[in-house]
Amino acid sequence: MKKFTQRSTTLLLAAGMGLAAATAWSAETLQDVMKRRGLSQQDLLAASKTYVPTGKRDDFIAFSSGGQSGQVIVYGIPSMRILKYIGVFTPEPWQGYGFDEESKAVLAQGRIDGKDITWGDTHHPGMSETNGEADGQFLFINDKANPRVAVLDLRDFETKQIVVNPIYKSEHGGTFVTPNTEYVFEAAQYASPLENKKFYPLEEFNEKYRGGMTYWKFDRKEGRIDPKKSFSVELPPYSQDLSDAGKGPSDGWSFTNSFCSERYVGGIEKGRPPYEAGCSAKDTDYLHVINWKKAAELVAAGKAKKINGHDVLMMETSIKEGILFLIPEPKSPHGVDVTPDGTKLVVAGKLDTHVSVYSFEKIMAQIKAGKFESKDPYGIPVLSMKDTLHTQVSLGLGPLHTQFDSKTCVAYTSLYVDSQVAKWDYCEGKVLDKISVHYNIGHLMTMEGDTAKPAGRYLVALNKLSIDRFNPVGPLHPQNHQLIDISNDKMQLIYDMPLPLGEPHYVVAIDAKKLKPAVRYKLGTNSRTDQPHPAAVRAGEEHTDKKGNKVEVFGSLIRSHITPETIEVDVGDEVTIHLTNLERAQDETHGFTVSTYNVHASVEPGKTVTVKFKADKEGVYPYYCTEFCSALHLEMQGYLLVKPKGWKASKTTLAAGTYTEAEYKANVKKVADTQVIIDSVVAYITSVNYKDFPDVVAMVDDAFDQLGKTKGLKEKHEAFAAKKDWENATLWAEQIWQYQVKTADLGLRAKTYLEQNGAKKVK
Amino acid sequence: MKKFTQRSTTLLLAAGMGLAAATAWSAETLQDVMKRRGLSQQDLLAASKTYVPTGKRDDFIAFSSGGQSGQVIVYGIPSMRILKYIGVFTPEPWQGYGFDEESKAVLAQGRIDGKDITWGDTHHPGMSETNGEADGQFLFINDKANPRVAVLDLRDFETKQIVVNPIYKSEHGGTFVTPNTEYVFEAAQYASPLENKKFYPLEEFNEKYRGGMTYWKFDRKEGRIDPKKSFSVELPPYSQDLSDAGKGPSDGWSFTNSFCSERYVGGIEKGRPPYEAGCSAKDTDYLHVINWKKAAELVAAGKAKKINGHDVLMMETSIKEGILFLIPEPKSPHGVDVTPDGTKLVVAGKLDTHVSVYSFEKIMAQIKAGKFESKDPYGIPVLSMKDTLHTQVSLGLGPLHTQFDSKTCVAYTSLYVDSQVAKWDYCEGKVLDKISVHYNIGHLMTMEGDTAKPAGRYLVALNKLSIDRFNPVGPLHPQNHQLIDISNDKMQLIYDMPLPLGEPHYVVAIDAKKLKPAVRYKLGTNSRTDQPHPAAVRAGEEHTDKKGNKVEVFGSLIRSHITPETIEVDVGDEVTIHLTNLERAQDETHGFTVSTYNVHASVEPGKTVTVKFKADKEGVYPYYCTEFCSALHLEMQGYLLVKPKGWKASKTTLAAGTYTEAEYKANVKKVADTQVIIDSVVAYITSVNYKDFPDVVAMVDDAFDQLGKTKGLKEKHEAFAAKKDWENATLWAEQIWQYQVKTADLGLRAKTYLEQNGAKKVK
Repeated sequence: MKKFTQRSTTLLLAAGMGLAAATAWSAETLQDVMKRRGLSQQDLLAASKTYVPTGKRDDFIAFSSGGQSGQVIVYGIPSMRILKYIGVFTPEPWQGYGFDEESKAVLAQGRIDGKDITWGDTHHPGMSETNGEADGQFLFINDKANPRVAVLDLRDFETKQIVVNPIYKSEHGGTFVTPNTEYVFEAAQYASPLENKKFYPLEEFNEKYRGGMTYWKFDRKEGRIDPKKSFSVELPPYSQDLSDAGKGPSDGWSFTNSFCSERYVGGIEKGRPPYEAGCSAKDTDYLHVINWKKAAELVAAGKAKKINGHDVLMMETSIKEGILFLIPEPKSPHGVDVTPDGTKLVVAGKLDTHVSVYSFEKIMAQIKAGKFESKDPYGIPVLSMKDTLHTQVSLGLGPLHTQFDSKTCVAYTSLYVDSQVAKWDYCEGKVLDKISVHYNIGHLMTMEGDTAKPAGRYLVALNKLSIDRFNPVGPLHPQNHQLIDISNDKMQLIYDMPLPLGEPHYVVAIDAKKLKPAVRYKLGTNSRTDQPHPAAVRAGEEHTDKKGNKVEVFGSLIRSHITPETIEVDVGDEVTIHLTNLERAQDETHGFTVSTYNVHASVEPGKTVTVKFKADKEGVYPYYCTEFCSALHLEMQGYLLVKPKGWKASKTTLAAGTYTEAEYKANVKKVADTQVIIDSVVAYITSVNYKDFPDVVAMVDDAFDQLGKTKGLKEKHEAFAAKKDWENATLWAEQIWQYQVKTADLGLRAKTYLEQNGAKKVK
Repeated sequence: MKKFTQRSTTLLLAAGMGLAAATAWSAETLQDVMKRRGLSQQDLLAASKTYVPTGKRDDFIAFSSGGQSGQVIVYGIPSMRILKYIGVFTPEPWQGYGFDEESKAVLAQGRIDGKDITWGDTHHPGMSETNGEADGQFLFINDKANPRVAVLDLRDFETKQIVVNPIYKSEHGGTFVTPNTEYVFEAAQYASPLENKKFYPLEEFNEKYRGGMTYWKFDRKEGRIDPKKSFSVELPPYSQDLSDAGKGPSDGWSFTNSFCSERYVGGIEKGRPPYEAGCSAKDTDYLHVINWKKAAELVAAGKAKKINGHDVLMMETSIKEGILFLIPEPKSPHGVDVTPDGTKLVVAGKLDTHVSVYSFEKIMAQIKAGKFESKDPYGIPVLSMKDTLHTQVSLGLGPLHTQFDSKTCVAYTSLYVDSQVAKWDYCEGKVLDKISVHYNIGHLMTMEGDTAKPAGRYLVALNKLSIDRFNPVGPLHPQNHQLIDISNDKMQLIYDMPLPLGEPHYVVAIDAKKLKPAVRYKLGTNSRTDQPHPAAVRAGEEHTDKKGNKVEVFGSLIRSHITPETIEVDVGDEVTIHLTNLERAQDETHGFTVSTYNVHASVEPGKTVTVKFKADKEGVYPYYCTEFCSALHLEMQGYLLVKPKGWKASKTTLAAGTYTEAEYKANVKKVADTQVIIDSVVAYITSVNYKDFPDVVAMVDDAFDQLGKTKGLKEKHEAFAAKKDWENATLWAEQIWQYQVKTADLGLRAKTYLEQNGAKKVK
């Protein structure tokens, strides 16, 4: 038996003696593995197209709606690894979203009729565009169930704003953006009276229920929607669905599908045929064609009516001013998609086998000539389908949504009933290829495929059913996003990705190089307002104020302690705790919670966060850092002491620890020994071209940050030693060592990095 | 230009004419791809070891804590694809968890001091065992922040129970199970007074603050913890941490680590050294050794004290009865892990370079001989470390947690500060291999590696920092779970998996073949109680009751309509809606929400769910199915009409649709034509050995379910036609076609499946 350790000084002394990391490879060959795992050559090819080795990056980043999870899902392509779920409409404690005061303020913007709505049915993410191209700055997402739109900033991947639609009761068809993100727009879905809380019976559906389009003005500089400069266009009760903005020649116009233009009202419990029969009885629905630029001018000119305090351009005005038209479109369509060059619109009717390609030029020609085949029951001019079509192509069963390739004239359309993707030419009107997917595909998505400049290469099929594709996890199945290689003539299915949470409806993807997220905040930032946080502190400025029954803590977080470590309050006090993460290092997030008080904060480097609660239960409540932020994260703790009314301390001193001079001296030696190790690591790092490695430079900065915190501690422990206070002397020396451990952790990581990445000796 | 479609009858007629799915492969060779993507031969080998082709399954299923997300994460190994996030302590709308009444009742069990706690800090999942082996029946998970334990049933992957710990304020070290899941146990973490809401100042820390171990009695038949038969063992305020149960020779005992056995109280704001210094000042902490079998007998014999109504075996009793012992263990350890054969315990101190292997036999020998080196301040006998150790091995910096291989004597230990995994021999006491991970590994996990029969092959490193491994997604980074192939002498890193939501602490994995989840519920089940739901209905039994101001709807969901389609209430009514999903088909989940009333339900096949709200806002509120359940899912809708007080209908008839005899006849013809298609598909399916394919048999069952719903509709539309009611005649005929479309969808999927899976002609 080996001698057991007497002292932990060996911890860092052993640093140089570890075995080298394994670099030799196992004897199992590629052929062995393929045989063992039953992989075909095709499987191996697919694996090679999707596998991203450690430390390498994905080419594209996808932003998916989370469906009923109320979140946004971020994943990498081609690896199909999910990188983040972002809390949007649903509180999410890991991010502190809805558990700290700053994010509660964002969620509170989404209250409807004065009440919290704690979830959302997110459907269609839209990414900000510049000149019709994805610019990677902002993401917008709707809530169908509770008509709202959220704004996410892609500098920090956080939700910044929620805006309630003032006139709808649902809105499926959004968000979409105009080519320079002047507006973020969304359509109503299920028609209802526009006036809030106004009741009309279903018998007055045709007269009193309405749909509409809302154009939210986006202020790019502020990074927020400006509701006061936003407006809606009143539409008939046709269940407006998805939209797209014109671009290039069609810029200034927007296009919106509809279903149930039959205006059917169901009532199966009264013996009426259900909605599904009555809403799909006719062969065509209406494509809405709206001149949003002119609509905005009309609103500016005061031609809108205020409904619930919001500007609405009434149908009468839109008709009179010539900004609203309808075109028949085959049956219960879902997507309308403008081609990259802006000259055509593609519409697919779910209950028709065709996609219909409309010509924007023909539409304009008909409008200019005043050639309308009829008017709808509300007096809106209806253009001839025949005279505005460029072509129709029979694709298969249940065509739903179309996206575009980087190759000219090439489009992809999902076929729900066929469970297939069709590749086709929308110029020539011919089918090029088909591929089966698993199963029942809803939307599909190509890289930047709904912009003016699609990037090609990959397509994602958003399959609604996965059935047998994955290991079973109970009656509720994951969705299945399948990655398809579209870089060659034949499409190739290369990856099945389960969606573990939520039912995504639509996804947008962007070239990863266009995203420039930050890794830290400027010290003391309120990340939800992007402003300096008034309660931020720098190291040494921490303090606690008490005024009446209000206790306000201005604290800080750093590896591995919380300042303060004790918070004393009286029962019934209102407690506000502000915490600033003093770290600068990438990925050094701290968390914070207080036992049973239902608060949680995620505090990334530089961020200041506030939690607030009423200390209404007397007793003792530990608080701690909820992130595994360092080797001693469990020791990053403190106590909230909630004292009973009238409590008086009888014992006022803490029990002293049993520390000896020998222990103090041992600690001083440990510190000195450890410094030798650190110096040797520093000597190695500075002997090579470490400055050529930005990640290493960041680690070295952080290491010196940590080491810098030992300043003054030597004088401190020596002063206590002089007074023979061995507890304080020992522990302050120990504290130096704690910082040394963190310094060494970083230094060793940097050293390994340099060794593994071919650092070279410098003279 | 092609002629645009006149009627949608072509939908199904086109079925047989689609292009065959692409099966040819692109010209890009494996070498081309490797060159383009910069993959090495080693990368390709790793890809081949982890890629799971479409339709194939993973070998192991991992259950990970979600950390501060308050959830459990389920993923497949080796593909590392996340299959499900299960709502446990945090409401999650996709699953309806916390948004329907049945799951609200589960969450309500987790209230503390009468208040909802809407999140949890989940740490250590434990899987039910039979004879020390993982049996795949139940999963247990703790909440560190708000001391609670949850029970998940792996038949449906749902949370069934939450139990509040009655005496702790935090509990990090749980859950663990005894070898036959007699008990699920957990340790307190931060010491506090055991009496709820009892205040003692920190100056009385040593006297009044306590730790403890709680043993929850698990009733496997009921699938629930029985709090009345559960008990705790009072322990000193030593910050108890992780535990493990003995097995084989050590069955009946449990082992629990601790840190801060210094009992240090910080207070940096008052000039005291922080907790991190004072809690790691001494070279050893205490391993707690408890005879839980005897403890249970003592409790049964009435030797426990009731604290907050819960049985607690006080230290005095435990000492007197000889069931509680301490052994020194080097410095601030995290994991204690019993070897598969139950003969040894492995402890790693985070601030020591060694792992310490204790011999259970030696521990028992010392106890039997009454050989104690000392007593702790509370009178607990302390065994000699030296006399109970089997061996110690110096592994590296920051050893944390150990798991076992299927190979005898082989263990793996995480090294936090070194960012490495060490493979070593715990019998011989020697290091076998090391591998670098990225970065700062906390726990690690091998397949069934904490059971009596580890399965080998894979290891997962749970790295706390990912830093540069993934595409950046803002200041808050994903964690990084790295998959390591341990089947050969040298460990091989084969996959980096980002964790998109939450910070997992520990994971357990099980052979996928051991899990037998269901795909549907027995019709009318309350999934949270596993009992028949009293408000379930079968098709045709739907009804709505109104008593006073209470409206109760007994409804149903099926592709593609909700029954009822209209719910009329008076403002202020209390509305209860029960919905039964009548589907039998796998993956045919429906969702349900009512606009702006903050309710949502996920209703899997067979489930009955209740949502409840007060209709306090007059107006019109659409409701709809939130799942993309069929081509006409958008039409699966209805209206909640909230009438103002005293409202009287003036108009009582709905506008009639404009349908003609010609349209009716066209629909009848469409139905007949479609039936021909269906018959031909049926003819194909029955011409081959489809009964040999269970998935196809399920699809055929479902198809005939759908077609069966057309029963009686022909008579209905003919009767309306006889009365020249062309609207009803047309729409009821259309409804037949809607069922035909669903039938055809299934039939075509079955046909494709059979063609692609080599079905053979039968005579």
